[in-house]
Amino acid sequence: MIAIYPGTFDPLTNGHLDIIERGAKMFDRLIVAVAESKRKKPLFDLNDRVTMIEESVLHLPNVEVESFSNLLVDFMKEKNADVILRGLRVVSDFEYELQLALMNRKLNANCETVFLMPNKKYIFLSSSMVREIALLGGDVSCFVPKPVNDFILRKINDKGRT
Amino acid sequence: MIAIYPGTFDPLTNGHLDIIERGAKMFDRLIVAVAESKRKKPLFDLNDRVTMIEESVLHLPNVEVESFSNLLVDFMKEKNADVILRGLRVVSDFEYELQLALMNRKLNANCETVFLMPNKKYIFLSSSMVREIALLGGDVSCFVPKPVNDFILRKINDKGRT
Amino acid sequence: MIAIYPGTFDPLTNGHLDIIERGAKMFDRLIVAVAESKRKKPLFDLNDRVTMIEESVLHLPNVEVESFSNLLVDFMKEKNADVILRGLRVVSDFEYELQLALMNRKLNANCETVFLMPNKKYIFLSSSMVREIALLGGDVSCFVPKPVNDFILRKINDKGRT
Amino acid sequence: MIAIYPGTFDPLTNGHLDIIERGAKMFDRLIVAVAESKRKKPLFDLNDRVTMIEESVLHLPNVEVESFSNLLVDFMKEKNADVILRGLRVVSDFEYELQLALMNRKLNANCETVFLMPNKKYIFLSSSMVREIALLGGDVSCFVPKPVNDFILRKINDKGRT
Amino acid sequence: MIAIYPGTFDPLTNGHLDIIERGAKMFDRLIVAVAESKRKKPLFDLNDRVTMIEESVLHLPNVEVESFSNLLVDFMKEKNADVILRGLRVVSDFEYELQLALMNRKLNANCETVFLMPNKKYIFLSSSMVREIALLGGDVSCFVPKPVNDFILRKINDKGRT
Amino acid sequence: MIAIYPGTFDPLTNGHLDIIERGAKMFDRLIVAVAESKRKKPLFDLNDRVTMIEESVLHLPNVEVESFSNLLVDFMKEKNADVILRGLRVVSDFEYELQLALMNRKLNANCETVFLMPNKKYIFLSSSMVREIALLGGDVSCFVPKPVNDFILRKINDKGRT
Repeated sequence: MIAIYPGTFDPLTNGHLDIIERGAKMFDRLIVAVAESKRKKPLFDLNDRVTMIEESVLHLPNVEVESFSNLLVDFMKEKNADVILRGLRVVSDFEYELQLALMNRKLNANCETVFLMPNKKYIFLSSSMVREIALLGGDVSCFVPKPVNDFILRKINDKGRT
Repeated sequence: MIAIYPGTFDPLTNGHLDIIERGAKMFDRLIVAVAESKRKKPLFDLNDRVTMIEESVLHLPNVEVESFSNLLVDFMKEKNADVILRGLRVVSDFEYELQLALMNRKLNANCETVFLMPNKKYIFLSSSMVREIALLGGDVSCFVPKPVNDFILRKINDKGRT
Repeated sequence: MIAIYPGTFDPLTNGHLDIIERGAKMFDRLIVAVAESKRKKPLFDLNDRVTMIEESVLHLPNVEVESFSNLLVDFMKEKNADVILRGLRVVSDFEYELQLALMNRKLNANCETVFLMPNKKYIFLSSSMVREIALLGGDVSCFVPKPVNDFILRKINDKGRT
Repeated sequence: MIAIYPGTFDPLTNGHLDIIERGAKMFDRLIVAVAESKRKKPLFDLNDRVTMIEESVLHLPNVEVESFSNLLVDFMKEKNADVILRGLRVVSDFEYELQLALMNRKLNANCETVFLMPNKKYIFLSSSMVREIALLGGDVSCFVPKPVNDFILRKINDKGRT
Repeated sequence: MIAIYPGTFDPLTNGHLDIIERGAKMFDRLIVAVAESKRKKPLFDLNDRVTMIEESVLHLPNVEVESFSNLLVDFMKEKNADVILRGLRVVSDFEYELQLALMNRKLNANCETVFLMPNKKYIFLSSSMVREIALLGGDVSCFVPKPVNDFILRKINDKGRT
Repeated sequence: MIAIYPGTFDPLTNGHLDIIERGAKMFDRLIVAVAESKRKKPLFDLNDRVTMIEESVLHLPNVEVESFSNLLVDFMKEKNADVILRGLRVVSDFEYELQLALMNRKLNANCETVFLMPNKKYIFLSSSMVREIALLGGDVSCFVPKPVNDFILRKINDKGRT
């Protein structure tokens, strides 16, 4: 079975990585699909977001990382994917996830969404919190994988130099 | 009894139309009040949003469509309306709706809000999902009334030509 | 239009009465339908619950009180009622209300549920809280209509005597 | 992969069956595990609940039905099961499901819970609603599989005869 | 300042103890008030619940444990307590807590409720889950303080002997 | 004990002031910390937000107002503050508050968050609602302290003149 794990990943957090690791055990192949999400005006470039994830999943041989800018159900067909993988965290999240899953199922009746729960320690972790802390100069090393933290530090140093 | 059904309708969905049809049975007159909502930067022009609704409610003789840019309670007084009609969908929605209804009642003690529930099939449908799918080139014909779908297709074709 | 306001009313609270008063303004006739609810093992007898409501709605000429022990959609047909009236309070409530409204609509497609919001001061008031306070000897006079409070005081005095 | 779908199934609804069918496609073997749930005082006997499910999943060759009365994580070990399957419906549900999944993971770190979403039409359907309608003599044929409805009708007829 | 931490504590969990420890740092005196809660039919006797807590808070000199069976606001007056302390966990919880806090404030305008959040690892832990696992013979030593676990083991052994 | 009450306060509402008054009774010193929140593009300037609060808390001798643009946990250290004070309102709010509190505790293990509940009448009041009404020319005098209302009226008059 091929699963797609879609998201903006702006940036990847330890919670995302936890879901990827669980998904990698459950499915034959797992494609992390990084949405361009232009309208959300991501803090990190699409390429940087892809690279940070690639560097964070080197230990997972059946995981690939790709970007996409079309409709998720169309991207899934291109990849012959069977299911969408999503992590569940808090309530508002849950509502949105149900909405998204129902919408995708409406657009493609065969499109099944599988929800996994991250480790309890990540249950309230979000990319937006990480961005906020990083932009205020806080240390986010306990919230994101090492490659993401390194990238954030380099970016901030570069800015400091200019 | 005169009811006002306010919203941004960016664009009208089948869920909105379902509520309008239920409201048209319950009240003598129903005014669909399209908020200008400048700060939300709607995807569709105010006039286009009004026209799409007008074309979608032709079968409902006691329904009118109007735009407004003042405070809802003031618009209600102009129209001698008795109640505000709102559809209920998901939880986050519900919180916001309660907040809005309490605020309007505070601004005008006589202002009663009546909530109806759309058909179950629309319970997770939202304008923002429709916009997102349409902007990525997806088919939204099963989520919106025909006049809205036609308008979206024309707009996309026009853009394609330029 | 005839509306049914169903509930266990164990006992009637000021929040219930607030919804009844709002409904009485909106509909031609309003029938407060007291469910027997045997399985819930109500604290107050069905007859007492009916009487307490009757004494609390004397000022509302178009409001009647009846008990029922069959399916709500069947009771509605007997009464030629058009809509179900329900009050909205907190979130868990809301979920249950949606579920109930969808179930009733499934059992009878014409069965519309109308939700009203009580005055903000009653938004967290519930019969179960009133029961709990009353059973511990607390004063519930600010949570229930006078006839309900009088009944509760009489009942407690009677118990004290025995 | 072997999945366990645990529940009280008092009785099985169309929503449960929908999840079973989705799970049967996703996993090599699916064991529907009927909890005795003595403290909940189920309306239907454990054997009857098992039989009703067995008759409802005849078309699904890789689905088995078993009862259990020990701890779920212990039952899973007996069966060499890899994952717990659960359906997601409404919010309160979701909270409880997260709690349960975290508890099971705490009791057995390898115990993964997979959540699927039923068809939108079952999103507000629950066994307790079905019980309530059936006990009031309502028709539940549109909420439960045929074997469950047949059983309920037989039971009620039997009671009528006595 | 004197704070009351009320609850049924059937039984005390690590989450409760975490809140007690945080409260003990914040207030001059903290009274853990164990509600008799007859109607809830607790699994553990009132005296046992009190003893288990007493043994679990020996390291906290400014914490006392008492039982009460009257209205919380009345018990607070007896104790000259200034605030009610409550832990926050999940959403349904939160609703109930708000309701309770508003009710208590209505019964006594000076009655302030202070909410603290337990350690993330306890955010989904509840007494009812602990009871359920213990009754099925599961190991709850990671969910409750040692004195509670010891009591549960003794109780089960005693039962085994008989 | 020194408490920090952080927020954007765009603008201060009666609900915020209610929490400040409760906090002032509970803590030795209370610092209202106005976040610059550049990314949120506040309607009111940071200085104006600070001034409006200062004028609204003149009756509270142990309350100070300061602005900050660094990480909250860093600002707390500068001020030797012991706890963060937050008000609780509606559900979505609550989720976000839990997330924030857990994040701050992760960034600084000693950082405790204390939640208080505003008066019931403010439970659905928010700065964004106030902004929306004010921008549409509505009267917000019943939602905000007098100094805030005066500032809003002056600002609108000034705009009218130009």
